[in-house]
Amino acid sequence: MTEIKIFCPATIANLNCGFDVMGLCLDGIGDEMIIRKVAQKGVRITKITGADLPLETEKNVAGVAALALYNDAIYRVSIEHGFEIEIHKKIKAGSGIGSSSASAAGAVFGINELLGKPFTKHELVFFAMKGEVVASGSEHADNVAPCILGGFTLVRGYNPLDVIKIESPSELYAVVLHPHIEVKTSDSRAVLSPTVSLKSAITQWGNLGGLIAGLYTKDYELIGRSLQDVIVEPARKHLIPNFDLVKNEALKNGALGAGISGAGPSIFALCKGETIANTIAKSMSDAYSDTGIACDIYISKVNSDGTKII
Amino acid sequence: MTEIKIFCPATIANLNCGFDVMGLCLDGIGDEMIIRKVAQKGVRITKITGADLPLETEKNVAGVAALALYNDAIYRVSIEHGFEIEIHKKIKAGSGIGSSSASAAGAVFGINELLGKPFTKHELVFFAMKGEVVASGSEHADNVAPCILGGFTLVRGYNPLDVIKIESPSELYAVVLHPHIEVKTSDSRAVLSPTVSLKSAITQWGNLGGLIAGLYTKDYELIGRSLQDVIVEPARKHLIPNFDLVKNEALKNGALGAGISGAGPSIFALCKGETIANTIAKSMSDAYSDTGIACDIYISKVNSDGTKII
Repeated sequence: MTEIKIFCPATIANLNCGFDVMGLCLDGIGDEMIIRKVAQKGVRITKITGADLPLETEKNVAGVAALALYNDAIYRVSIEHGFEIEIHKKIKAGSGIGSSSASAAGAVFGINELLGKPFTKHELVFFAMKGEVVASGSEHADNVAPCILGGFTLVRGYNPLDVIKIESPSELYAVVLHPHIEVKTSDSRAVLSPTVSLKSAITQWGNLGGLIAGLYTKDYELIGRSLQDVIVEPARKHLIPNFDLVKNEALKNGALGAGISGAGPSIFALCKGETIANTIAKSMSDAYSDTGIACDIYISKVNSDGTKII
Repeated sequence: MTEIKIFCPATIANLNCGFDVMGLCLDGIGDEMIIRKVAQKGVRITKITGADLPLETEKNVAGVAALALYNDAIYRVSIEHGFEIEIHKKIKAGSGIGSSSASAAGAVFGINELLGKPFTKHELVFFAMKGEVVASGSEHADNVAPCILGGFTLVRGYNPLDVIKIESPSELYAVVLHPHIEVKTSDSRAVLSPTVSLKSAITQWGNLGGLIAGLYTKDYELIGRSLQDVIVEPARKHLIPNFDLVKNEALKNGALGAGISGAGPSIFALCKGETIANTIAKSMSDAYSDTGIACDIYISKVNSDGTKII
């Protein structure tokens, strides 16, 4: 095997109550990458379509993640060759559904496959995080973890990195509305207070506990009751036109919960079953139409596989 | 059935990362209560042993909880009689292992049994909370929920009350060291800041997520890694002599985690299996001996039944 084609899925981070720790892998939208084993050592990005991103390995999310893995892999396997990476972006940058994470995840997943899997999937998360630094300035795993592992993931902590894949019921669907606006990461960070009331924090972790319990017990009602965010959403929602309207329409039409995907501007809803997902998608799209802002809508089952060869 | 005898177990609230939301039911220590159906309507406390507590129904935790249920039960069943309550305290007041909760839980559990169970166990938590107001000035469920339901419980929220019983592995043991000192509730509250850093809050809810995932998946290691408290323990531990020493000895001797039980002063440790629990109990007791303060040690399996007829 010298060349593989990979599907690198979009992801929803935070999920209301799980700010900076929870994430979810999607099926309906993702990038494609081709990873090729070549004689020349090192890692090179040879082609990028669908986005205007740097080809220089050290400036590219996928390149940096790939190099982190490549430079560590020599301690586990003998490497007498290098790798070329083609990136075919489908996930728009700045959409809030893990565009950079998909590239980082695809690169480390693909090279690991071609090296004969010296690393576990959990270990790949560590290398993919290195790529995230290029995109956001910090190592964080809330998108790369679900992108690589699939399903719902919890990043318990970083010291050391501790990522847990959380079981989930099989009929969960996500609907994502991506408004074509730019929310600067600096803005979405600036609106967050560095301190929160202990009372709000308790509400938040009560809900996170409920979400995880609901996922394990396949209790859709409990999942729905737990999808609340009293800390981040109230601060950030003003950055997204019609957020409340879109969220309320989703809830009225059967969503278990809805909120901001990652740092936004995408708005997501979770629900049970594809039929309800279709209804919710239409209601969210309708509710957004009077903004005059173009948007994409994605309907997706929860992707329990994560990044995979296609 | 006109009279029943009840075991009302002690409980550990908070469990490090789950401040105000998590609780755990013990087996090795608890009160006994006798509930008797009598002709005279209303609720009376007729006997209290083991503690100096008021016999007046309206001033007694068990009495207030019992009245709350009694006054609501008339909407579900015909009540042509009253109830007498005897309380035989074994759990010391102010120990931090749910002494008042045991009384409240026992009263509502017992009367509900003698009425033919008009209420579910989850509904009983609501009435028992009313009793907690007498003891602490606020309705809270983090002790009464595990006391009534057994096992580990999560109080997701109060509006409306939402209590979830969390599955747990069968070999979990708790060790509790109760130092014979008084930590005033006002003091243990005063040391808590009304605000916390967002960073600490994220660490805390990451750990709470890990704890719940670890309980469902019976992953003792994950449970152990998650039993951390970066918010409350650092503020409160100074109120308990030798806390760090006792905790460290517990961890050195095989505890998965250790921390402050409820608002203290009791110190608890969780571990896998009775043999390790015995070793930990000795190590904690030894570590406390140089304080010159008397203490009790309890070793207990997790009690998955909760309050029950004996």
